[in-house]
Amino acid sequence: MVKILLDAMGGDNAPASNVKGAVLALAKDKELYLILTGRQNEIEAELKKYSYDKTRLEIVDCPDVVSMNDIPTEAVKRKQSSLITAYWMLKKQDDICGLVTAGSTGATIVGGQLILGRIRGIKRPALCPAIPNVRGGVTLLADCGANAECKSVMLCQFALLGSAYATAAFGIENPKVGLLNNGTEEHKGDPLRQETYKIMSSMSGINFAGNVEGRDITIGDCDVVVADGFSGNVALKSIEGCGKLVLGIMKRELSSSVSSKIGYLFIRKAIKRMRAQLDFDKVGGALLLGVKKPVIKSHGTSKGETIANSIANAVNVYRGNLISKVEALLEKANLDAITVSDE
Amino acid sequence: MVKILLDAMGGDNAPASNVKGAVLALAKDKELYLILTGRQNEIEAELKKYSYDKTRLEIVDCPDVVSMNDIPTEAVKRKQSSLITAYWMLKKQDDICGLVTAGSTGATIVGGQLILGRIRGIKRPALCPAIPNVRGGVTLLADCGANAECKSVMLCQFALLGSAYATAAFGIENPKVGLLNNGTEEHKGDPLRQETYKIMSSMSGINFAGNVEGRDITIGDCDVVVADGFSGNVALKSIEGCGKLVLGIMKRELSSSVSSKIGYLFIRKAIKRMRAQLDFDKVGGALLLGVKKPVIKSHGTSKGETIANSIANAVNVYRGNLISKVEALLEKANLDAITVSDE
Repeated sequence: MVKILLDAMGGDNAPASNVKGAVLALAKDKELYLILTGRQNEIEAELKKYSYDKTRLEIVDCPDVVSMNDIPTEAVKRKQSSLITAYWMLKKQDDICGLVTAGSTGATIVGGQLILGRIRGIKRPALCPAIPNVRGGVTLLADCGANAECKSVMLCQFALLGSAYATAAFGIENPKVGLLNNGTEEHKGDPLRQETYKIMSSMSGINFAGNVEGRDITIGDCDVVVADGFSGNVALKSIEGCGKLVLGIMKRELSSSVSSKIGYLFIRKAIKRMRAQLDFDKVGGALLLGVKKPVIKSHGTSKGETIANSIANAVNVYRGNLISKVEALLEKANLDAITVSDE
Repeated sequence: MVKILLDAMGGDNAPASNVKGAVLALAKDKELYLILTGRQNEIEAELKKYSYDKTRLEIVDCPDVVSMNDIPTEAVKRKQSSLITAYWMLKKQDDICGLVTAGSTGATIVGGQLILGRIRGIKRPALCPAIPNVRGGVTLLADCGANAECKSVMLCQFALLGSAYATAAFGIENPKVGLLNNGTEEHKGDPLRQETYKIMSSMSGINFAGNVEGRDITIGDCDVVVADGFSGNVALKSIEGCGKLVLGIMKRELSSSVSSKIGYLFIRKAIKRMRAQLDFDKVGGALLLGVKKPVIKSHGTSKGETIANSIANAVNVYRGNLISKVEALLEKANLDAITVSDE
């Protein structure tokens, strides 16, 4: 059994979507055992709508919920909330393998650092979503928002963390790592990028492919793109927004003539599949890379299917032995020896 | 007559596409007069393919071309190149209204600063493309790559420059300005963003709408999005890449079944219109904001139509009195008085 915690109260559609996601996930993976944290009566009311394997689901009653308006560092002190209860259980119980939440991103990051703790040697965790690319696979983007300000040693660690994630969860051997920059030439970017480029070029443990641009996240051939949390967030959100722009243009154009309206009847299913691929939220959440156990931050707007994907992703990361892969790469990289000026 | 210079040798498809663009532009605007700089014999060979109003086109022979590999600060010293010749003519001849180039971005920026010169009071020029948005209009993004590192006073000036551009070229009165950040809340971002937010909140001359995220460039309701050149470039390129991802997915899905192949026959025209809207390069290039006359940097891959759009955009900016609008806003804003710590 793989035991995963689900914050049943986090997100805009909680607990309904969370409970639905739990039921879907249990049906798909017979080795999965779920612990839902949250208001027991609300969760039970939702669970009544479904039939599921009751021997693989338990509820831990938590009266409190972390809201999106709570200050993260304050929120982690409230031990009776569904998210923070889950974090403490994750930390203390060896048999629990991971955590999924669609709640506050800030509280998820702070809880990961202050309660669960970082992998030995890791300076800061990174949020890492998997973004669909033209090759039909995914590009991992680390960091996409946990650290607005970064030093080069952090970026180098994100490269290691992302590489380990690519291997553990997506089976990519020797993943190619790109550094997100405003041009591909070696000298490009600000001093942070220039320094990081130099370190990464001579670093062991990663397969460094040089600088990449924003477009390479979706069309390039890197498996991992490393960014500070500010520009990584800008990239991720820009891609999400463009997906919405396209769907808007498509809707307008397909209803603009009789011919295209007829055509639409034939391509409805294809459009539906396109929509699903462009709905980046569904891919399975962002992994909080660098903490001691797999923690998945699912989008705040997650519906049942997305929650189920995030749970499956957490299981996948656990089964892929992410944490030991990170530790092995960290040792190989020997970053302390090559870091030049940041610390 | 509106006299515009065209660097006939800049870009991947020069001079063929540039000459084609010139001919297209002359046909569309009877008040347009074009001066092409470049290798006279090559330009004339291309011109022979078309019929056009010969009284509104002249060629200035330049033996040299700035290549993408030239170091920009060195390139601007080579006065016989098509781009630098054009810059010197633009500076010295009062009756010339603007310049269009698809050549080296770096040389275009450096030439704008060192030869043409900045508008009095402007610290650094910004590259500003117009990106299609869900509303069916455009969002102006300043800066998208001229300045990898920025101070808050520069970002505040980009807000003024972008506002003047929105009014002058797109007729938007009191344009809404957003600050590109990794979240919309007031406290979000790094110290640069936090300081800039404070200054912009109390600044005259702009209609500040607060922080925006990457997604707001294409789906939000701001007319101008202000960014440092690093994250602005990441946003622009991420959006471009996503457009390509979508076209790739569309192609795959529309050829995936008999039904969708039939449907495609009915929606071919709609797809063509979608493609055109997603081809962001076609919109008409990026304006080099903050220099003394309109300079348009067209994409390096520009084809004839794109060059023609960029020329039309330069004319539009000139006719909209951009420079005097910038000067008026600069006076109104009185940035020196409110800038807190950057200078």
